[in-house]
Amino acid sequence: MNLNDITVPPASPDALPPTATVDLGIFGGGQLGRMLAMSALPLGVRCSFFDPAGDQCPAASLGPVFGSAASLPASSTDPLQKFAQSAPLFTYEFENIDPALVRSIAQHKPVMPGLASLELSRHRWEEKSLFTRLGIPGAAWRPISSLNDLSQAVRELGLPVVLKTATQGYDGKGQCVLRAPGDLENVWEKMAAQTPLIAEQWIAFQRELSLIAVRSRTGDTVFYPLVENTHHHGILSHTLAPAPRLTAALQQQAEDYCQRILQHTQHTGVLTLELFELDQQLLANEMAPRVHNSGHWSIEGAHCSQFENHIRALMGWPLGSTDCQRPTAMINLIGRLPDLPALLAIPELHVHLYGKTPRPGRKLGHLTLQADSLDTLQERMQAIGALLPEPLALIPVETKETIRG
Amino acid sequence: MNLNDITVPPASPDALPPTATVDLGIFGGGQLGRMLAMSALPLGVRCSFFDPAGDQCPAASLGPVFGSAASLPASSTDPLQKFAQSAPLFTYEFENIDPALVRSIAQHKPVMPGLASLELSRHRWEEKSLFTRLGIPGAAWRPISSLNDLSQAVRELGLPVVLKTATQGYDGKGQCVLRAPGDLENVWEKMAAQTPLIAEQWIAFQRELSLIAVRSRTGDTVFYPLVENTHHHGILSHTLAPAPRLTAALQQQAEDYCQRILQHTQHTGVLTLELFELDQQLLANEMAPRVHNSGHWSIEGAHCSQFENHIRALMGWPLGSTDCQRPTAMINLIGRLPDLPALLAIPELHVHLYGKTPRPGRKLGHLTLQADSLDTLQERMQAIGALLPEPLALIPVETKETIRG
Repeated sequence: MNLNDITVPPASPDALPPTATVDLGIFGGGQLGRMLAMSALPLGVRCSFFDPAGDQCPAASLGPVFGSAASLPASSTDPLQKFAQSAPLFTYEFENIDPALVRSIAQHKPVMPGLASLELSRHRWEEKSLFTRLGIPGAAWRPISSLNDLSQAVRELGLPVVLKTATQGYDGKGQCVLRAPGDLENVWEKMAAQTPLIAEQWIAFQRELSLIAVRSRTGDTVFYPLVENTHHHGILSHTLAPAPRLTAALQQQAEDYCQRILQHTQHTGVLTLELFELDQQLLANEMAPRVHNSGHWSIEGAHCSQFENHIRALMGWPLGSTDCQRPTAMINLIGRLPDLPALLAIPELHVHLYGKTPRPGRKLGHLTLQADSLDTLQERMQAIGALLPEPLALIPVETKETIRG
Repeated sequence: MNLNDITVPPASPDALPPTATVDLGIFGGGQLGRMLAMSALPLGVRCSFFDPAGDQCPAASLGPVFGSAASLPASSTDPLQKFAQSAPLFTYEFENIDPALVRSIAQHKPVMPGLASLELSRHRWEEKSLFTRLGIPGAAWRPISSLNDLSQAVRELGLPVVLKTATQGYDGKGQCVLRAPGDLENVWEKMAAQTPLIAEQWIAFQRELSLIAVRSRTGDTVFYPLVENTHHHGILSHTLAPAPRLTAALQQQAEDYCQRILQHTQHTGVLTLELFELDQQLLANEMAPRVHNSGHWSIEGAHCSQFENHIRALMGWPLGSTDCQRPTAMINLIGRLPDLPALLAIPELHVHLYGKTPRPGRKLGHLTLQADSLDTLQERMQAIGALLPEPLALIPVETKETIRG
């Protein structure tokens, strides 16, 4: 309704068809799509979703969902076509979607971030090669298609090496650590079916950090403060914002890396860069061309959340402040739902449930917690940890397990 | 889904029918219903709505709406019946609804706040009488059913008097100020058709304040800080939270008044009390048994908003913190939509549009603004005022027009 305020440069004459019923189409109706839509609604931006789960997806209550026959009126034909007609502008919540789907829409209407960002982040070979081309340091790595490649990589990189699928990996899935020469055949047997792979030099990093960057279609960029991420069984357990012991030099280093990627891909929207910290140096691990679990803290912890800033960036509106004025923690709710009333008794706690059916290892929601000091924050995190089905992985940094997302 | 955590005492065996598809039914699908539903969703509480506007109401994108044939599948019969079946627990966003509708559901399932609060606040005679019974001071008033009543009231109360409809009045509608004896017949002609009325002694108050109170079904109560409200043409223009020059004594006085009402009505949920300040004394103006426009600041300005606390109260969950740590302003967007990008350029501004069609005098949305000091806040309000279609009514308190909501 108030999108008269913005003009979407049509990619073709039908880029703004009379059939458009919402303002933004989102590939994926999971919790990220849901939180994007919740930030969009108060700005007058209505969303539709493309998701195979149809009306069962977390975002379903926030707009029309296309993607499964079940979710459509009997009359309708091709869900993707209906989705394409539903909006003048498109984005995605997750990079593990078939680029062909995105391309089919991108031929007619703007999809942001563009296909470049999407395809780069879908294939670790492309991603790592880009980091190298842009002079962004990272762990030494080798592309792996055969046992021969692997044994040569082991000779060149030394042990241990981390073996990862080149595509489709997330939440620690499709990863394996090769520690001893004797494991080589076993590891290969386990992973051979999932080629292409990459072998990555083991980095005994001190901690994982991530940077949430936002680039508007106007070219303006803003960055949230670096945050510290702790994983448990390969899944993000909790995030501290800003990262403890954050220095201006460290922040600058991360923003510099990110700025190179944003410029190279002409990225529009949120981009997340995961980094390893090793002796005050940052090594790029991987990028995600989207809002990210490690940015959920920003809903309450920053003036303008990663979700609202993604919407502002797509619309070409001024970007919001990324300041984090008080220590903030994000804690994932994984596998089983905790006792809600017990949680709500904790001061300055915010609960975000995604409306998903509990299942082991599944992200069902998250908590945001704030305090006046990092000490108070960590005390409260301990209290929350005691209420969670899975104990909070508050592992000392030194001994942190190094399975990387 | 996670409402296993709470038990709703059934008013009858079918109080929790297998047909319930959501967790909470809301009478009214306007912006208040919408913001209630947006606070409920992350807590796992899904809402349905009863609204004659059907799918055109602001809350429509957040859950099923019953209320007009148009909004229902051809198959369906009575919208109210469908609504009654849709949830195990009910609330309302607005007191100007037919109590018969509420009563028809209250016979079978819990409706919170109860009918007592609803009916009291629907009729100014009842409301004012209650204030008197509870020893809560207010302007002297008389019930008016005839010209004779009016002329007697004028003799007893003196001039000017404020003449108001006893029911259905909001946003300054159904009000009239009688200033000179000669106006008596004219004023009566204007208002006679709207009897019953009340005549209220003119109070040259210094400012209007309001208190948002929350009482849980467990009996716990919390109060937000008193806020200062400025009206323009009888409609709330903006709210300052906390109210400037707020003293502990003033806050205590207001909480004391409110506590008496909460106890008397055994109110569950949010209750708003509008007050006039006159020489450090508070006079009760009117109450609203619901979330209130003068509480919208709490979405960003308090740890837990009036909307989330209303949901927590209904569910019997621990109430959230009502602290307001930084000066916060709420500014209504009335009649026409402003230039959104220009607004978004202002730091620490939050935009809440309701998705309503612009119309003179209609509340289309609101802005929340924060700052480190009241001075900075008021400077930014001036900047925003310049961007609004209607100039902000930043009238000096002394000369403020005394049309009362």
